[in-house]
Amino acid sequence: MLGILGGMGPMATVDFMRKLVDATPAMRDQDHPGALVLQACDIPDRTRAILGGGPDPLPAMAAGLRRLEAAGATRIAIPCNTAHHWHAALQARTALPILHIVEAVADALIARGYRGGPVGLLATSGTLTAGLYPERLARHGFACVAPEDQDAVMRAIRLAKAGAMAEAGLLLRTQARGLIATGCGQVVLACTEIPLALAASGESLGDPLLDATEALARACIGACDTPVRRAA
Amino acid sequence: MLGILGGMGPMATVDFMRKLVDATPAMRDQDHPGALVLQACDIPDRTRAILGGGPDPLPAMAAGLRRLEAAGATRIAIPCNTAHHWHAALQARTALPILHIVEAVADALIARGYRGGPVGLLATSGTLTAGLYPERLARHGFACVAPEDQDAVMRAIRLAKAGAMAEAGLLLRTQARGLIATGCGQVVLACTEIPLALAASGESLGDPLLDATEALARACIGACDTPVRRAA
Repeated sequence: MLGILGGMGPMATVDFMRKLVDATPAMRDQDHPGALVLQACDIPDRTRAILGGGPDPLPAMAAGLRRLEAAGATRIAIPCNTAHHWHAALQARTALPILHIVEAVADALIARGYRGGPVGLLATSGTLTAGLYPERLARHGFACVAPEDQDAVMRAIRLAKAGAMAEAGLLLRTQARGLIATGCGQVVLACTEIPLALAASGESLGDPLLDATEALARACIGACDTPVRRAA
Repeated sequence: MLGILGGMGPMATVDFMRKLVDATPAMRDQDHPGALVLQACDIPDRTRAILGGGPDPLPAMAAGLRRLEAAGATRIAIPCNTAHHWHAALQARTALPILHIVEAVADALIARGYRGGPVGLLATSGTLTAGLYPERLARHGFACVAPEDQDAVMRAIRLAKAGAMAEAGLLLRTQARGLIATGCGQVVLACTEIPLALAASGESLGDPLLDATEALARACIGACDTPVRRAA
């Protein structure tokens, strides 16, 4: 059974669960795979830790992992991009396979037929500073591009976490459009708050935006050996 | 920590979690209470069991409860009205308090200032046959009224579980309006699929509709001693 180490943030986890249910072809409850979801909202801020100003979130994440193991999870997904800075450290603490959100995004880029072009990144400053995307995407031939105004992206993410989704979405829309204008054929929404905010601002999430939350949900369904409903 | 015995159905559980997050006043992830959610989608159909045609869901629900206990839950909520037919049987199997959705609805009716009038019920045929609402609401002075065409309600619930939300919502709208026309000052959406379907059909969920999912979410936040955001 899939174990979801969530709560980073809680509404992003709800969005991930919705995408997981949406991607499953089902006519009745019993057609859906089971899942166990921990809303571990007390995990310290990931970006603050990476930038050097906050407590280490690893102990709380490891404690969450132990709860999921105790309840019978057999594989793990983490619907928070920045938390993947600790992916290797968490994987070293469990025998359960932990899916990697950047690999799910790489698979989605390839599935879209995007080859070798620059990829824009809308992400937390923690994700950018930790270099989570560039190294893994480079293995697949993609170069990553940061937005013109990263402070605006970070401001938007904090607004989204405080519930001001539409205001956050407007800030993000400007940065997404800037990345597209500079030649990014794909822009990854590489923080799980971002698709929520863009949706609230009325921005369509179609091509060339790639939602990392949805990519991870599809990777989870793939790992469950359940057929995945085709994207609209 | 709140443990949620969910998956009945999975999208209704996602809706419940969204309402739980929405009802929490929070400026950052760490302001939210933790929760542990089991998407136990393999629990047999509750209505079929009550109507005599299907396997007993109690063993699977009890197994889910044990998983939540193992992971450290300290109280339980079940975002499925029909499953409350087994509330006493489940409560007898655990020392953890299990909130009761009908008590949450009674509290919400009283909080709205509704006194003594008839209450319409949009619910599964299992919930109606089991008499889940009438006895408990009678203690608070409310008489329950079933809709004119219960078969249409049941058809709508099956459509919603198969993802045909808007079509389901249209059927439910007719039955809700019928209940209001016969003098029900409040109509309880007493199946967790129903608010999803009505929202998809464009029906406003304002007064006189009362969403049992939201009532349970607010009862959970109240039980966590966290202040509850006022309804819009």
